[in-house]
Amino acid sequence: MDKLYIIKIGGNVIDDEEKLSSFLKSFALLEDRKILVHGGGKLVTNFAKKLGIEQQLVDGRRITDAETLKIVIMVYAGYINKYIVAKLQSHHCNAIGLSGADGDTILAHKRQHPVLDYGFVGDVDVINTILLKNLLDQRIALVFAPITHDQQGQLLNTNADTIAQEIARALCNDYDVQLIYSFEKSGVLLDTNDEATVIPSINPSYYQQLKSKEKIFAGMIPKLDNAFTALHSGVKKVIIGKAENLQELISGTSGTTIVNE
Amino acid sequence: MDKLYIIKIGGNVIDDEEKLSSFLKSFALLEDRKILVHGGGKLVTNFAKKLGIEQQLVDGRRITDAETLKIVIMVYAGYINKYIVAKLQSHHCNAIGLSGADGDTILAHKRQHPVLDYGFVGDVDVINTILLKNLLDQRIALVFAPITHDQQGQLLNTNADTIAQEIARALCNDYDVQLIYSFEKSGVLLDTNDEATVIPSINPSYYQQLKSKEKIFAGMIPKLDNAFTALHSGVKKVIIGKAENLQELISGTSGTTIVNE
Repeated sequence: MDKLYIIKIGGNVIDDEEKLSSFLKSFALLEDRKILVHGGGKLVTNFAKKLGIEQQLVDGRRITDAETLKIVIMVYAGYINKYIVAKLQSHHCNAIGLSGADGDTILAHKRQHPVLDYGFVGDVDVINTILLKNLLDQRIALVFAPITHDQQGQLLNTNADTIAQEIARALCNDYDVQLIYSFEKSGVLLDTNDEATVIPSINPSYYQQLKSKEKIFAGMIPKLDNAFTALHSGVKKVIIGKAENLQELISGTSGTTIVNE
Repeated sequence: MDKLYIIKIGGNVIDDEEKLSSFLKSFALLEDRKILVHGGGKLVTNFAKKLGIEQQLVDGRRITDAETLKIVIMVYAGYINKYIVAKLQSHHCNAIGLSGADGDTILAHKRQHPVLDYGFVGDVDVINTILLKNLLDQRIALVFAPITHDQQGQLLNTNADTIAQEIARALCNDYDVQLIYSFEKSGVLLDTNDEATVIPSINPSYYQQLKSKEKIFAGMIPKLDNAFTALHSGVKKVIIGKAENLQELISGTSGTTIVNE
């Protein structure tokens, strides 16, 4: 099977022009099929502030009211997505920017929650792989903004880590999929303040152990849960590490590898 | 050859939710291959005002400084483009939103002008038709935001009428292309204040006559010039008329048809 890299870049990388630029150069050089999923960074918060729209975060998730959704779409699917695509083209990497509404690629539903109304936040139902495979096999890199739709005309703000994981699971019967969560840190750290404490490898029992000892930074737990879900569904490998070290993450000399056994 | 409709919708239609919705329903029903090119409407001006970015227009063209470009990308390629795509999906019309950077579809250069600096405004050089044909032949409707790129990483604001015309010319060897400029008026009017004075058909000599008698509204001249350029390059038919009358424009019972003879 052909290799496919699915790489998520975190918000902090997007906020830093130099880091983003360095990452995009490495991404462009990757010779295999590839998908980039990007988060949003601080641009949404900054725009919302300038426009006087109050932002509410619960457990790190943005409550997306109608006005916030407009800004999220503009910044994620508009500015960031097209900026990345244009930069990749300048590095001779043919890329196409997509939201989940484009080509009906990611179908989701508005999140239902017994207590909290998250607003226009989507949970993924289906990834339509036909168009994705068609584009990947033309050797076009896919760049996904974390926006989905409900097929009723409603766009939805959706967690980028989850989108990366869902796409990885959906395509792992067609490709040898490696999922990479890249961000500003060198990997999963034993001590969040010490970049030298990268854990090279985590399996399910070690993960339980780390969690029970509260050795895992809370923000990392959904990422690791996503990683194990992906592995259980047939994704070959999940790596967590620093965006600027993309080559090293792939060659296995940097970052944390998540394994099933 | 298979039929291809390339339809440009003007800004005033985009600003009016009801008109836009009615247009999109008709567009979704078209059974042939189809491309929609949208303008921007007043949203950019409104956002720029809210963000305190001063706007300068010369001869109806926006001077696009770096801050304005950001807003143009966010609104055109982000909000409007994804809104339209999601609405089309809700009408069971599979659509994909594109800027000219996506798939390297529209290559342009920054406009050079002896006196005036238009800022980040692009003039089209090349339409890359391979991906467009591939998507059209999968029966996916293409929705273009009026943004292009220069292959050096720079996105450029580009006139939507011109994009529609350039795409029409580029694809007229592969399809039987009809180009439709749709907006808020019923067609080219002899008296701009009287919707009953639609000119049913304009050929080159009649156009010269109308221009010399100053019977043509100045804003219509670039549209008509674009129309004749398209016809000269092999586009089958150009129609100008009201967006809400899409079916009638196509059947020839409404609007102004531009002809070569």
